[in-house]
Amino acid sequence: MNPVKVGICGLGTVGGGTLNVLKRNAEEITRRAGRGIEVAQIAIRSPKPQYDTTGISLTSDVFELVNNPEIDIVIELIGGYTLARDLVLKAIDNGKHVVTANKALIAVHGNEIFAKAREKGVIVAFEAAVAGGIPVVKAIREGLAANRINWLAGIINGTGNFILSEMREKGRTFDGVLAEAQALGYAEADPTFDVEGIDAAHKLTILASIAFGIPLQFDKAYTEGITKLTTADVNYAEALGYRIKHLGVARRTDAGIELRVHPTLIPADRLIANVNGVMNAVMVNGDAAGSTLFYGAGAGMEPTASSVIADLVDVVRALTADPTNRVPHLAFQPDSLSDHPILPIEACESAYYLRIQAKDHPGVLAQVASILSARGINIESIMQKEVEEQDGLVPMILVTHRVVEAQINEAISALEVLDDVVGSVVRIRVEQLN
Amino acid sequence: MNPVKVGICGLGTVGGGTLNVLKRNAEEITRRAGRGIEVAQIAIRSPKPQYDTTGISLTSDVFELVNNPEIDIVIELIGGYTLARDLVLKAIDNGKHVVTANKALIAVHGNEIFAKAREKGVIVAFEAAVAGGIPVVKAIREGLAANRINWLAGIINGTGNFILSEMREKGRTFDGVLAEAQALGYAEADPTFDVEGIDAAHKLTILASIAFGIPLQFDKAYTEGITKLTTADVNYAEALGYRIKHLGVARRTDAGIELRVHPTLIPADRLIANVNGVMNAVMVNGDAAGSTLFYGAGAGMEPTASSVIADLVDVVRALTADPTNRVPHLAFQPDSLSDHPILPIEACESAYYLRIQAKDHPGVLAQVASILSARGINIESIMQKEVEEQDGLVPMILVTHRVVEAQINEAISALEVLDDVVGSVVRIRVEQLN
Repeated sequence: MNPVKVGICGLGTVGGGTLNVLKRNAEEITRRAGRGIEVAQIAIRSPKPQYDTTGISLTSDVFELVNNPEIDIVIELIGGYTLARDLVLKAIDNGKHVVTANKALIAVHGNEIFAKAREKGVIVAFEAAVAGGIPVVKAIREGLAANRINWLAGIINGTGNFILSEMREKGRTFDGVLAEAQALGYAEADPTFDVEGIDAAHKLTILASIAFGIPLQFDKAYTEGITKLTTADVNYAEALGYRIKHLGVARRTDAGIELRVHPTLIPADRLIANVNGVMNAVMVNGDAAGSTLFYGAGAGMEPTASSVIADLVDVVRALTADPTNRVPHLAFQPDSLSDHPILPIEACESAYYLRIQAKDHPGVLAQVASILSARGINIESIMQKEVEEQDGLVPMILVTHRVVEAQINEAISALEVLDDVVGSVVRIRVEQLN
Repeated sequence: MNPVKVGICGLGTVGGGTLNVLKRNAEEITRRAGRGIEVAQIAIRSPKPQYDTTGISLTSDVFELVNNPEIDIVIELIGGYTLARDLVLKAIDNGKHVVTANKALIAVHGNEIFAKAREKGVIVAFEAAVAGGIPVVKAIREGLAANRINWLAGIINGTGNFILSEMREKGRTFDGVLAEAQALGYAEADPTFDVEGIDAAHKLTILASIAFGIPLQFDKAYTEGITKLTTADVNYAEALGYRIKHLGVARRTDAGIELRVHPTLIPADRLIANVNGVMNAVMVNGDAAGSTLFYGAGAGMEPTASSVIADLVDVVRALTADPTNRVPHLAFQPDSLSDHPILPIEACESAYYLRIQAKDHPGVLAQVASILSARGINIESIMQKEVEEQDGLVPMILVTHRVVEAQINEAISALEVLDDVVGSVVRIRVEQLN
């Protein structure tokens, strides 16, 4: 059988990795796919690629590639929302299948893209868009297809996890670690997407769709970054038996779906609490399978290429299959997506870690406890530290039972106006992840 | 579209779980599969099933079921090698697809079964045969299809892991925990398959085939159980920074493929070293993806049913696909399986933990060190304990660098004939699993 011809748009890190792995493992991949995969054309910005492109047609025009009648599958690796959207829609229009690693594109324009793909009978595959080399999209979409999924929680941004791991292991500050990560090239020059949770929210949006059978709704995800985390809170969490991780959490409740990215205390003995450095992990809890965890490299040249190529092999198999009986893009048949609403963060429920800076007066604890109990908020554990020498304040650390966020907000407002409470109350969500 | 009709052979734990989950999640599963799945017939030994079988035809004759022209897919859940083999071959002969949770059947008769299935153009799916609810067969076969897989290592027997976890956490003996596990129903009345590693070797055989593209060769797997492990070794391992786990390890080397099940020391900070109780986990190292880990419940009613039903959904999709372009049973095209040999255990390489009971004489360490160094075996770390009060012996614990097993065997023979060494040298393999 003739090899399938693919075109790669973008020869950056992931494009280069894809080219390298397709070449190095050509025999292994053909033995699996039953058919060779040939890179017929590459669209690149610069005319001097740093990878070996011998025998491959090069163009600086991505539209030349997506209009190339020789090409069966277009691999979109240019990133961003605008040109990427145009070229993916054009590729679909031309009847080509698409493989993409672009989480932002899928999270923001996925509904439009998949509708168009269905109309044209082509596949848009995106395993590489979430958690790099971990085949977690396939695991949720196919491997856990028997389950009503209750919740999922993931460490899905490697830069953020690297920063938190360094803060905990070495007592370093957020700013210090970020500066080093930028110098080493782990973190982007503009780290906003990573440290503010936007990148994680893109991925979480995708995971929630395939887990719950809902349309992609990135604009409704709650996103809170890690920029305000202090080494003090990392250490207090540790003393209470927790680790702080930047999690994407999606949970199904009767009222709606929680879709939220934020720093989270997790019991230190949970496997996911021990995922360190740039590694990623996603926990998925289904009603039949129970809790599962998928761990691996969340980014990087070849891990991401691994997922791009796994998608390519899937598409090669689907080339001769009945287009009406494929794995649906978002795991559920498009005519049976659910309109279960995404909950606003105020309606989400979790336990909370609170750090209150209080004056060293008798009776403060009683006042705090009374404000919480008046709002039906139970205290799970409490830790009071020594008076801080500098300012004479006593840090009081509480972990509450589970409560709706609106209630904890009210309580925090009431705490912050107490005479003996100084400054803002620090609030970090707590999840057990059993 | 009419629902797909399936027949279940065997209504034990997994059969009951499959029936329950298919019923409870019927809507969710149909929304994914695009087509309902209806249990048309169940073959059971006893006429009074403990599950709700209202409206389902029952038979005590599995062959009536596999000959039933109404049934598209046969689910084999009776276990064992003999009747299961006959009925699966008959189902295939009748042109029916098969889903099975039977690891022994696939490991021992898989090559014959898959050959027959290819001849008849049907699928035999077996996700549930390995690691219960963890979709690890799919992950390796499809999710990591881009990779040349270097090695995999798994905790793939829940009973064994439960026993080792209890020994470590509570200082209990092997026999004590096993007796309790049997009383609680975690362990079989005849625990041989679990504690001697046979069950794990069945699963490892399957994982190695789909990872490396080799035929199933259960008879060549090296199998060592956990029955001889002592609490003392568990504790010494801990003191050296390791945990002892019962692992299935498959590794590709230039000379051949290592395929071995045995107790293994793993550095305590590895994620897989922290998989406790009855949980399972499989690490897979690919040349592109790096190390990934897949974790979850390795057995149990509904976790196993989760994988059975995931396979059902896959088969439903494949019903209208080109039978010549499916995911191959063993991940690689059947005409391109490799004849890379399975290595005998003597040719396998690992590091070793050695515990030597020595008399408290000066110069013993020098003798031991000289025997090892004469055979090119380097010592990574050494720990000498106090003299044991009872017998006046000094336990000397060593961890070696990596060495071929034949060499360590020679060294152990030489150590055991030393005048100052008493009894057998305890030897446990050590893997870093980076």
